[in-house]
Amino acid sequence: MLKIGIIGATGYVGQELIRLLSNHPKVNIEILVSKQYIGRKLNDVYKNFYKINENTCQKLDFDTIINKIDVLFLSLPHGISSKLINEKILEKVLIIDLSADFRFKEKEIYEKTYGIIHENDSILKNAVYGLSEWNRNKIRHTKLIANPGCYATCCLLSILPLIKENIINLDRIIIDAKSGVSGAGRSLNLEFHYSECNESIKAYKIHSHRHLPEMEHQIQLITGNRSDLIFTPHLIPMNRGILTTCYAKLNNVYEWNDIYDIFKKYYGKETFIRLYSKGEFPETKWVKGSNFFDLGFSIGRNNKEIILIGAIDNLIKGAAGQAIQNFNIAFGFPENIGLDLIPIFPI
Amino acid sequence: MLKIGIIGATGYVGQELIRLLSNHPKVNIEILVSKQYIGRKLNDVYKNFYKINENTCQKLDFDTIINKIDVLFLSLPHGISSKLINEKILEKVLIIDLSADFRFKEKEIYEKTYGIIHENDSILKNAVYGLSEWNRNKIRHTKLIANPGCYATCCLLSILPLIKENIINLDRIIIDAKSGVSGAGRSLNLEFHYSECNESIKAYKIHSHRHLPEMEHQIQLITGNRSDLIFTPHLIPMNRGILTTCYAKLNNVYEWNDIYDIFKKYYGKETFIRLYSKGEFPETKWVKGSNFFDLGFSIGRNNKEIILIGAIDNLIKGAAGQAIQNFNIAFGFPENIGLDLIPIFPI
Amino acid sequence: MLKIGIIGATGYVGQELIRLLSNHPKVNIEILVSKQYIGRKLNDVYKNFYKINENTCQKLDFDTIINKIDVLFLSLPHGISSKLINEKILEKVLIIDLSADFRFKEKEIYEKTYGIIHENDSILKNAVYGLSEWNRNKIRHTKLIANPGCYATCCLLSILPLIKENIINLDRIIIDAKSGVSGAGRSLNLEFHYSECNESIKAYKIHSHRHLPEMEHQIQLITGNRSDLIFTPHLIPMNRGILTTCYAKLNNVYEWNDIYDIFKKYYGKETFIRLYSKGEFPETKWVKGSNFFDLGFSIGRNNKEIILIGAIDNLIKGAAGQAIQNFNIAFGFPENIGLDLIPIFPI
Amino acid sequence: MLKIGIIGATGYVGQELIRLLSNHPKVNIEILVSKQYIGRKLNDVYKNFYKINENTCQKLDFDTIINKIDVLFLSLPHGISSKLINEKILEKVLIIDLSADFRFKEKEIYEKTYGIIHENDSILKNAVYGLSEWNRNKIRHTKLIANPGCYATCCLLSILPLIKENIINLDRIIIDAKSGVSGAGRSLNLEFHYSECNESIKAYKIHSHRHLPEMEHQIQLITGNRSDLIFTPHLIPMNRGILTTCYAKLNNVYEWNDIYDIFKKYYGKETFIRLYSKGEFPETKWVKGSNFFDLGFSIGRNNKEIILIGAIDNLIKGAAGQAIQNFNIAFGFPENIGLDLIPIFPI
Repeated sequence: MLKIGIIGATGYVGQELIRLLSNHPKVNIEILVSKQYIGRKLNDVYKNFYKINENTCQKLDFDTIINKIDVLFLSLPHGISSKLINEKILEKVLIIDLSADFRFKEKEIYEKTYGIIHENDSILKNAVYGLSEWNRNKIRHTKLIANPGCYATCCLLSILPLIKENIINLDRIIIDAKSGVSGAGRSLNLEFHYSECNESIKAYKIHSHRHLPEMEHQIQLITGNRSDLIFTPHLIPMNRGILTTCYAKLNNVYEWNDIYDIFKKYYGKETFIRLYSKGEFPETKWVKGSNFFDLGFSIGRNNKEIILIGAIDNLIKGAAGQAIQNFNIAFGFPENIGLDLIPIFPI
Repeated sequence: MLKIGIIGATGYVGQELIRLLSNHPKVNIEILVSKQYIGRKLNDVYKNFYKINENTCQKLDFDTIINKIDVLFLSLPHGISSKLINEKILEKVLIIDLSADFRFKEKEIYEKTYGIIHENDSILKNAVYGLSEWNRNKIRHTKLIANPGCYATCCLLSILPLIKENIINLDRIIIDAKSGVSGAGRSLNLEFHYSECNESIKAYKIHSHRHLPEMEHQIQLITGNRSDLIFTPHLIPMNRGILTTCYAKLNNVYEWNDIYDIFKKYYGKETFIRLYSKGEFPETKWVKGSNFFDLGFSIGRNNKEIILIGAIDNLIKGAAGQAIQNFNIAFGFPENIGLDLIPIFPI
Repeated sequence: MLKIGIIGATGYVGQELIRLLSNHPKVNIEILVSKQYIGRKLNDVYKNFYKINENTCQKLDFDTIINKIDVLFLSLPHGISSKLINEKILEKVLIIDLSADFRFKEKEIYEKTYGIIHENDSILKNAVYGLSEWNRNKIRHTKLIANPGCYATCCLLSILPLIKENIINLDRIIIDAKSGVSGAGRSLNLEFHYSECNESIKAYKIHSHRHLPEMEHQIQLITGNRSDLIFTPHLIPMNRGILTTCYAKLNNVYEWNDIYDIFKKYYGKETFIRLYSKGEFPETKWVKGSNFFDLGFSIGRNNKEIILIGAIDNLIKGAAGQAIQNFNIAFGFPENIGLDLIPIFPI
Repeated sequence: MLKIGIIGATGYVGQELIRLLSNHPKVNIEILVSKQYIGRKLNDVYKNFYKINENTCQKLDFDTIINKIDVLFLSLPHGISSKLINEKILEKVLIIDLSADFRFKEKEIYEKTYGIIHENDSILKNAVYGLSEWNRNKIRHTKLIANPGCYATCCLLSILPLIKENIINLDRIIIDAKSGVSGAGRSLNLEFHYSECNESIKAYKIHSHRHLPEMEHQIQLITGNRSDLIFTPHLIPMNRGILTTCYAKLNNVYEWNDIYDIFKKYYGKETFIRLYSKGEFPETKWVKGSNFFDLGFSIGRNNKEIILIGAIDNLIKGAAGQAIQNFNIAFGFPENIGLDLIPIFPI
């Protein structure tokens, strides 16, 4: 059994990692670290674990922790992981980091995007962007996995095959994204106070969301192409789920089946990607509680335009689930162990 | 006091008309027609009217009704109004129709869009599209007002000034729209069953929503320009509100203030349009319960792209409220009588 | 025109007072005080007031304020009003306090319930509990109105007639109450973080909610009877509305009509109380946005038990609306001016 | 592997049975019957099963079905199962019925409660009420399990130990219950139309809900005592979850620990029952997605009153989960196989 540590265990993503890993046959959760709840039992902070998990949250004593575990998941605010991790640690522990700290090859983009000095950029060359379906081989050979952002996961999985195959115009790809409120985490903020966000919708971080540079950067790394995205996230009054609506111009006239064949080529054997039939489109309710990415699309305007609809559970495929998928890949396990989750409905 | 009749009184829009007109100082509601609730009191169907409105719903006896009233609001499924209304009726009664039957000048577009033969197309020349802020003068001189669709209202108000002033590229204007569930009306349908749409989001009628031809048609009528829109509506788990996110390419490089000046020129004196300051954007919660259209925008991508965010209460500015605004215009009343509604929050 | 000041203007109740008073024909809002938003415009804190209200929030300079106004509404945390108000102020300004500071005749109950020393108990004799329908005459002759708690309003209106008429057993009246989240106010708290309270229900303050002593105290003051209530509030995932389910034992066998006659006697002429017919029961959706208290009941268990269902909009009849109703009473205005609100649905 | 058939597979409970049984190591789902979706794939009706379950819904050909399976789950409207099942079938197939048809020993109560003639009452003697924790031994020796109602499960588990031990007064036990909307099933009805039940709360079937006779009947069967319950269910704007608030008079003065000891005695070793510590109370969010029944309580009013708060996931412990728990018991499997579900949060 592999020994697991989780730093940032009492955020929404952290506790979801714990829930999912509890049913993983190859691991034992050894250490939970939480800054806010040191000395308190996880099941006191999250009652769903009552009578299930008796772990107590510890303070961050990094050197001690690192010697007791095989794998470390970090689910922390941006800017912390990069101070904790160094090359020596990577010799013995697999690191799966859910912050943005290792998602960029060039520290300049990170620093500009996050307004933080990256104090450990020499390590960036070791990091692999954990978009499981696209970087599987690299994930197998690294000790440092940078788990993608939730929006980035849903958008990149939607458009990468079409970029790779030169199907869509890279200029002015428009992504209109919608997320449930759990994506904002558990920190208190007037924006996420119940009466403020219930029964309303808004766009936010227009022209300035941090997943935009992440997506453009990864498109370039993965496909070699420079792209020009416009990205607008919206806050939806629901707990979980991301839906992304991507608008792109086709480079040629295509029929629906032409495009479907491309997606089939790339995703036809993927366990966690479900392609929808013509005229059918994802809804977040059909992926909630699972690691699926669902994808549907429509060709319009004289076969010159495509609209792609993608859906994920933001806390699973968009965070904890994909992290475990990457862990499975890294250790050579079947990708679906611990992740054979049927979406739960209605919930 | 003007005598009002409402056909389709027990739909969500119908009852909202009644609620708003109940506080209008120039009218008396004389006749409520409901196919489904003949002989039942309105306040039995909608308990909010209990002890307030004692009207009983009647069956549709059109000839009798038309002789008893000065103004008729029709809130019916598409295809019915056009069979009821003729030129003779228009001589004595002001008709405000909330269906799509009179929104197109050319019956061919209507027939193609709605799959219904228009049986009364000679009357289309009399109809004025009731986008209040844009057709005010025509509304004053017609007896047949075609009230706009809810999405169309929010989108057209967002983009018309920029089209009129030749600011944005008319090719590939992308509109990603989001609506609360009340827009779907009160008819039972699995799609709108609580457990099916709560806590989920989906796109629908992709490349095929009926408000798309309506918008392109009206853009041409109002500005003289042909445009090419891509329009995707989404269903949001909330009762009320529409938010539209419009993406357009600027024809030149513009600063935020340049665009603001244009909106100010068109909308600066409008009672029901609120322009947001730089960096601020509408949310549906700030317009709920009112006749406001709120508008904010952002310039990005080297000042070559604009994103416009518009918000309305779909049942008010998107339906009943704008209908009353049009009624006020038609009779020369101040536009805001009966509509001085402060948005109600949190609700 | 009467000059109004509001202290605590940027809480949910404060801003609802402003919204309602904005349409009141007898008043001008002169002063808004907000501790948190000094120097900011109301419409910057609450965008619903954008282009409607241009007032700026001031700091609390009590002596200056009190000389500029005729009526002062205080919507503050418990324990502050009692320090601000004194007898001299009451000589010239009508005080309507929405905290609990003046709801008890005996300071001991207040101090025990709220854990605060009452620093101004000599003034308690001047205060009238503003349960409008029950204390109308006293409200007319006081300058200090203690507006009731939201739960207390709904429960007392439900049971007072039956206690007054000796219909129900005063021992073990059980009140199971349900409230939307806006009742908790705007202060940040994990409990009211969206993802924590959405899609869940819980009971809270079991056997210890502060409205319980308030209700028992007022039952004694109003009816002369000691009662023994059990009160359990629940948090419901919705913005607005309170529903209370009261269970009481009948002292004799009664038919439904017997009880109805009693309610009719007490409430038959009330503008803001709506009695439901046999077999019909209130739902919060039918009162939202209005000052109504809706009441229905059922007799069961061999005509020996009664269940009473009451519903109000917690921010209106449960707070701001009833405060204005009391203001109207105090000044001899018709009770409904500024409050002729038809419940808005669906919202 | 045991062969499973499910009749009523496309209701919310039916598809939840399929989801849970899909992860059960001892079964194969062989047959799905759906009246409404004959010939359609389950994963077409419920997209959550897309790429997971390829079964097609069949019409009800009872004789054929019964020969192909070992266990039959029936999730049907009341009155159908009793016509399908007979003693001969029970010789070879284990029947787990989720309707009310076999919940009563005396057909008279059933007929009065459901307004249906019971056409097969001779079989009632074979039926065991599947309240797993209370009837475990009987469940082991029957072929006909009548799965309890969702409300009844939550209430009975709350109060049975106290009745059994003669702790509470059986006269006037008041149960105020709250349920999410999924409990109403998938059939269209204006009551459960999104805009009608969202953002509102109501009581329903006051003094007349069918789970009341079920509870009183089972209390008598299980404890030998006649009780007098008052039961009021409420509809809560959320998808899943039941919370019940039970009010009972204590027969003596008790401390919290006295009562806790009793619950510990009855439930201390139960896998699916979680007792809360003093001052802590269940919330539906902590049980969603699991088979847990969570219980907390408070002693008040001079130690003479108890309030019990129970919570379940209505579709799991209240239906499909308990059915599988009963199946496990009947076949001598560990009770938790297929049911080791950690509640999922936030969702």
